[in-house]
Amino acid sequence: MASPSHAPPDHGADSVETRSPELRKDPVTNRWVIFSPARAKRPTDFKSKSPENPNPKPSSCPFCIGREQECAPEIFRVPPDDDPNWKIRVIENLYPALSRNLETQSNHQSATVTSRSIVGFGFHDVVIEAPLHSIQLSDIDPVGIGDVLIAYRKRIEQVAKHDSINYIQVFKNHGASAGASMSHSHSQIMALPVVPPTVSSRLDGTKDYFDETGKCCLCEATSKHFVIDESSHFVSVAPYASTYPFEVWILPKDHSSHFHHLDDVKAVDLGGLLKLMLQKIAKQLNGPPYNYMIHTSPLKVTESQLPYTHWFLQIVPQLSGVGGFEMGSGCYINPVFPEDVAKVLREVSLT
Amino acid sequence: MASPSHAPPDHGADSVETRSPELRKDPVTNRWVIFSPARAKRPTDFKSKSPENPNPKPSSCPFCIGREQECAPEIFRVPPDDDPNWKIRVIENLYPALSRNLETQSNHQSATVTSRSIVGFGFHDVVIEAPLHSIQLSDIDPVGIGDVLIAYRKRIEQVAKHDSINYIQVFKNHGASAGASMSHSHSQIMALPVVPPTVSSRLDGTKDYFDETGKCCLCEATSKHFVIDESSHFVSVAPYASTYPFEVWILPKDHSSHFHHLDDVKAVDLGGLLKLMLQKIAKQLNGPPYNYMIHTSPLKVTESQLPYTHWFLQIVPQLSGVGGFEMGSGCYINPVFPEDVAKVLREVSLT
Repeated sequence: MASPSHAPPDHGADSVETRSPELRKDPVTNRWVIFSPARAKRPTDFKSKSPENPNPKPSSCPFCIGREQECAPEIFRVPPDDDPNWKIRVIENLYPALSRNLETQSNHQSATVTSRSIVGFGFHDVVIEAPLHSIQLSDIDPVGIGDVLIAYRKRIEQVAKHDSINYIQVFKNHGASAGASMSHSHSQIMALPVVPPTVSSRLDGTKDYFDETGKCCLCEATSKHFVIDESSHFVSVAPYASTYPFEVWILPKDHSSHFHHLDDVKAVDLGGLLKLMLQKIAKQLNGPPYNYMIHTSPLKVTESQLPYTHWFLQIVPQLSGVGGFEMGSGCYINPVFPEDVAKVLREVSLT
Repeated sequence: MASPSHAPPDHGADSVETRSPELRKDPVTNRWVIFSPARAKRPTDFKSKSPENPNPKPSSCPFCIGREQECAPEIFRVPPDDDPNWKIRVIENLYPALSRNLETQSNHQSATVTSRSIVGFGFHDVVIEAPLHSIQLSDIDPVGIGDVLIAYRKRIEQVAKHDSINYIQVFKNHGASAGASMSHSHSQIMALPVVPPTVSSRLDGTKDYFDETGKCCLCEATSKHFVIDESSHFVSVAPYASTYPFEVWILPKDHSSHFHHLDDVKAVDLGGLLKLMLQKIAKQLNGPPYNYMIHTSPLKVTESQLPYTHWFLQIVPQLSGVGGFEMGSGCYINPVFPEDVAKVLREVSLT
């Protein structure tokens, strides 16, 4: 959270100052968010403070086509079979956070509450989304973005065969202040030996909702959240208790627990809606750095958990940093209501 | 997390590259942290990338002595009674995230799982730590820092009288990239109508530890964590499963659930150790932006919870941002082991 803000927010003529602050909690995030209109600008005034050239060309980029030998080992490419005119490459991370060589040790360990330490077995891979440095993900056509999503799926299917892997996090950092150290368009796949606490907490929250209502709270997206756009199989929403300003979720309309069950037709359909959302965010917010994360279910979800686990893709433009309040409490302050975000993003014209 | 890092980490001669990655979880944070030496520099190579002038003087600063009328209403000052030569002022935030005027509405509300929204009642105050713009908290002597801590205590005691307040978060943002929008040295107090999820999760973790061992895991700090320094009543440690590089905790040696039970003698003692830690961090890491947070217990903690609730102060230098992996999974990647951090910080000489 920004500090006490004598630097005054820009209160425009149609300021939302008359609204009172409100706390909201979504079963999906299980996190309280403080919506704080006193700190708000008009929804249309949000812009990236540091719009960056999203992919400045360094003197040499090992992700560019023709420099493959400078990268860590390739896992596969699209099209396959050493095609020199590749469109997508999935490679190992040269400096992986987890080691793929520790599986044996990983199988012989136990953790207790008092001494909780486990071997850092896992996979940390990179998906190079385009051969050329100048191409951003949102420049690619829906079929091409669908191919990136299918590459995620294929890599997840490979890694999921390892018994010690319990959760797979797909994510993209776009822009240096969103955590990207390489400017060439890419995303990452991290396969973990544990189910992260964020995921466990999400399951707890959606289970509570299911127990109370008999419904999956993400299937109810169109009533509980605020719809922006939709495609044949997906809908994009500003979530009811958005943690971050201008956060967007894209959800499959049909109940589905795991991202990697996405079929090819739906991948292209999702590619189109993801492209649209990235373009709208870039236009409305002045090309901000952003992250997206695919929130899927643990690999070993039980039969009884299936009715309340529903994957989605979360897009977060980087408009403000976090401070001591968020780090300390895990609560977030959001100066803009999602109902206003949805209205603004619905109306963005890309022509 | 920084992206796939073809930008190579600086592998020095005494690199810790030979260590394998390890996952650790602390009962206090209930969060998995990946310690990833392959991404590490030597512990002594960590420096703030953007050491900022921590308190650049704007053309006018309403927190400076003599400009009190430009601020939101004062709550109290030290010394009291309108002393024009004040040392500390506690004031309302001009743009509070929560409203102190909604208490009546707050008393007549209920939240359910399916529609979880509550009125944004609460307090959001600012503690101006010094009358002069040029003074940073770490410049003040231990007695003066103790006075700041006593001001926190006094304000907490006032706010705790409101029945709808359930948790009080004290925090400090130092430097723009740590979230400070005002450069004049200050901290903030946020009084919330809810117990934040981070706090609930901490209680769950320390309860599990207590149930298993019969002990408070923070009382065991000197064995479970890595000691840096100590004073008569406090100890500073690099925590076993540090979320952030060079994170430091300061804990009371005697079991204590609530920060606001701190007496005056201990406040001065803590002031001295806090000053030492801030000075060591500034010297070792090149004056980084930082946050500190006081992790206390919910106001309405039950008798049975007292044995496993133990307050502490967490200092986090801002050395790296978070990316999609952390946002998505709630797991963190830390390139430096806390045992190395403790060694480095023990040996920092301030002379």
